[in-house]
Amino acid sequence: MTRELMELIDNRKISIAKDQLKKMQAVDIAEIINEMDGKNSLLTFRLLSKEVATETFSYLSRDKQAELSILINENELKDIIEDLHFDDMIDYLEEMPANVVKKILKNTSDVERKLINQFLNYPDNSAGSIMTIEYVDLKAGMTVGEALKHVRKTAPDKETIYTCYVIDSTRILEGIISLKSLVLADPQKKVKDVMKTNFISVNTYSDQEEVAALFKKYDLLSVPVVDQENRLVGIITIDDIVDVIDEENTEDFHKMAAIQPSDELYLSASIFSLARKRIQWLLILMVSATISGYIIRKYEAVLQSMVVLAAFMPMLMDTGGNAGSQSSTLVIRGLALGEIKLKDFLKVIWKEIRVSLLVGTALGLINFIRILYIESSSIQVALTVSITLVVTIVVAKVLGGILPLIAKSLKIDPAIMASPLITTIVDAAALITYFRTASWIIGMSF
Amino acid sequence: MTRELMELIDNRKISIAKDQLKKMQAVDIAEIINEMDGKNSLLTFRLLSKEVATETFSYLSRDKQAELSILINENELKDIIEDLHFDDMIDYLEEMPANVVKKILKNTSDVERKLINQFLNYPDNSAGSIMTIEYVDLKAGMTVGEALKHVRKTAPDKETIYTCYVIDSTRILEGIISLKSLVLADPQKKVKDVMKTNFISVNTYSDQEEVAALFKKYDLLSVPVVDQENRLVGIITIDDIVDVIDEENTEDFHKMAAIQPSDELYLSASIFSLARKRIQWLLILMVSATISGYIIRKYEAVLQSMVVLAAFMPMLMDTGGNAGSQSSTLVIRGLALGEIKLKDFLKVIWKEIRVSLLVGTALGLINFIRILYIESSSIQVALTVSITLVVTIVVAKVLGGILPLIAKSLKIDPAIMASPLITTIVDAAALITYFRTASWIIGMSF
Repeated sequence: MTRELMELIDNRKISIAKDQLKKMQAVDIAEIINEMDGKNSLLTFRLLSKEVATETFSYLSRDKQAELSILINENELKDIIEDLHFDDMIDYLEEMPANVVKKILKNTSDVERKLINQFLNYPDNSAGSIMTIEYVDLKAGMTVGEALKHVRKTAPDKETIYTCYVIDSTRILEGIISLKSLVLADPQKKVKDVMKTNFISVNTYSDQEEVAALFKKYDLLSVPVVDQENRLVGIITIDDIVDVIDEENTEDFHKMAAIQPSDELYLSASIFSLARKRIQWLLILMVSATISGYIIRKYEAVLQSMVVLAAFMPMLMDTGGNAGSQSSTLVIRGLALGEIKLKDFLKVIWKEIRVSLLVGTALGLINFIRILYIESSSIQVALTVSITLVVTIVVAKVLGGILPLIAKSLKIDPAIMASPLITTIVDAAALITYFRTASWIIGMSF
Repeated sequence: MTRELMELIDNRKISIAKDQLKKMQAVDIAEIINEMDGKNSLLTFRLLSKEVATETFSYLSRDKQAELSILINENELKDIIEDLHFDDMIDYLEEMPANVVKKILKNTSDVERKLINQFLNYPDNSAGSIMTIEYVDLKAGMTVGEALKHVRKTAPDKETIYTCYVIDSTRILEGIISLKSLVLADPQKKVKDVMKTNFISVNTYSDQEEVAALFKKYDLLSVPVVDQENRLVGIITIDDIVDVIDEENTEDFHKMAAIQPSDELYLSASIFSLARKRIQWLLILMVSATISGYIIRKYEAVLQSMVVLAAFMPMLMDTGGNAGSQSSTLVIRGLALGEIKLKDFLKVIWKEIRVSLLVGTALGLINFIRILYIESSSIQVALTVSITLVVTIVVAKVLGGILPLIAKSLKIDPAIMASPLITTIVDAAALITYFRTASWIIGMSF
């Protein structure tokens, strides 16, 4: 479909292309336009009906939006921007170069410009930054019949009409009512007798992650956003929350892999920006890994007398790191989903102790047999390696279990306590155990 | 609130407790009941109005559902189960012990029992397993006015009425129409003239992850599920998709930390089950880490003559592992979100080569200076370590970038190619580079 359409445009088979476009979804059209050069994308864009054009525009990449904003004339741009949903417009204005923003704001009224500026000022990741103002508001004194008439009249411009918001004359939020209840209720009844008064709402400065948690817990389709005085200022809809969930997960994935998180896309990010986001943590971890180096130097004599011990160092360190990262990942994820709470501290420790003893003993035994019979090393070496393995796994898993909880209690993001940091700590623990056990067992029996 | 209510119930202050419960959301009530013993939970549950009781029941933990199913009498149970949304009922039946399921199925009609069995048989993670049958269906020949009347009549039992489905006499799906369009359209118009015919649908056997991707891409609130003959068999709503997104992300987190994924909860899982899910990968990785051991043994002579080299091994291996896991995480996440595609193979390699050279050179230089001036080691050692570091970072990042893509092209889950596996491979590469460089530089200058 994509290639076909691109060829039609390339060969200027305009009327066939237009028919094709009619059968497509706006998101898919946007994906194709994103891949076209400026001339073809402008041509394709102009083949769309006004309504589809606006929707398609909102799905274009930021770069393509900027490109088209310059290519099309001022009136066309004004029409599109005016028809965008308010939250899409804010997202767009936030990313556009200053000259484009100026070109647009020039054409807006004072009231609207003030509103836009207010929205542009909500902090990143706050409820205010993802809300929209296109909701249906009702008055408590209306009858259901009047309310439905009002919904019908104002619906075309609204992002959702499936939940309506009941406010008083000072815009204080008094209740919410779903379109379903309105449709089912007796038209003569008053809105105030049908609306829900124990509803969930959030504040403009609520963190978007908390807002997403509310959507998940209460299965919401939208949520009202109020200011400090409980006045309704906007709503957040589920489609934006789905994006937030992905964003927050990506952030956790990145933090857990020791990458400075950002919402830049991998393929379009510059190599300097990618390098910068990776080098910070690598440097911190590299310097902390030198602690392991000092430990090895301290026990150089042991190693010198039995160089074979070096051969088991990678296996011990890797297994320790892996065992720790398993536990930390489970706990970090449990915290993120709200399944594990701070009060479960002791439960987590107790669980990790038992699991690590089970896992450690099993792997230790397998190792002992392997080293003794397959590698034909001495029993002292086999014993040293196996004991170290058990201790390392227990230390790794208990640390992996509690460090995220400690981070959380210190209001640090638990995701930081993932495998890279734990690996470094566990390495040191593994090496100390290894050399101490070695001097003890080998010193004892030699 | 939780403690307060629990005390009220403990002290049998029933009427105050009842008032409290009226002000609460069903999810929150379920959370409290989950923490109560059998007697108190039954008492609390019986204080709820029928409607709230059903909703609360659907939010209870599986264990609590099973407990209550046995405690309440057959008629009460029948009433609740009948009022559950169909998808919630299926979820419930799937998890209940056989005797409870039998008790319930005894009371259902033949038709319903057949339907339940059909639903229970859809494979896990398929669209069929998460769909519901409570949708509004319309006929193309109805007028909008008739359609609205039909919606109003059938709405109370439906999971959503905000998208309606237009089917012919053989249940073939012909179009979809939002309640918004119905409300806005002229009541005299025919449904077939207002409905959307280019809509997104999925198959009963579609993977839930793909379904979730469609919801994200097209900002859907619900999607129709059709069988092989294009007959409408159910719908999937966004609230269930939000759960799927979390589930799929958890699965990725677990796989990336070398844990056998499962939907068991951490706190309620037995230690044997937790140990089993962790030990498999630890064992595989432990055995593959012995390759690094063989490499060290092969170069024992080099190490013997310069035991100081051992001190830098942990830093080299850790930094390599971290560098690789950064790249693999970015690519795995990019693939999961659809930002990176298989065709971007060369772009990813080229990007990782440049980024890794930048990062590697910077870290290599810092290391060189640190070893020479702070650790006062010889220039040969500093050079060996730094060269190895650069090579290791380049190898790690390029492997981290391409292994997930290779996995994807082989239809293996890219999440497997995360830090644990890459660490093992990179360790071996780092050690070979290290000892070869050492023999070359030290051999040359000694």
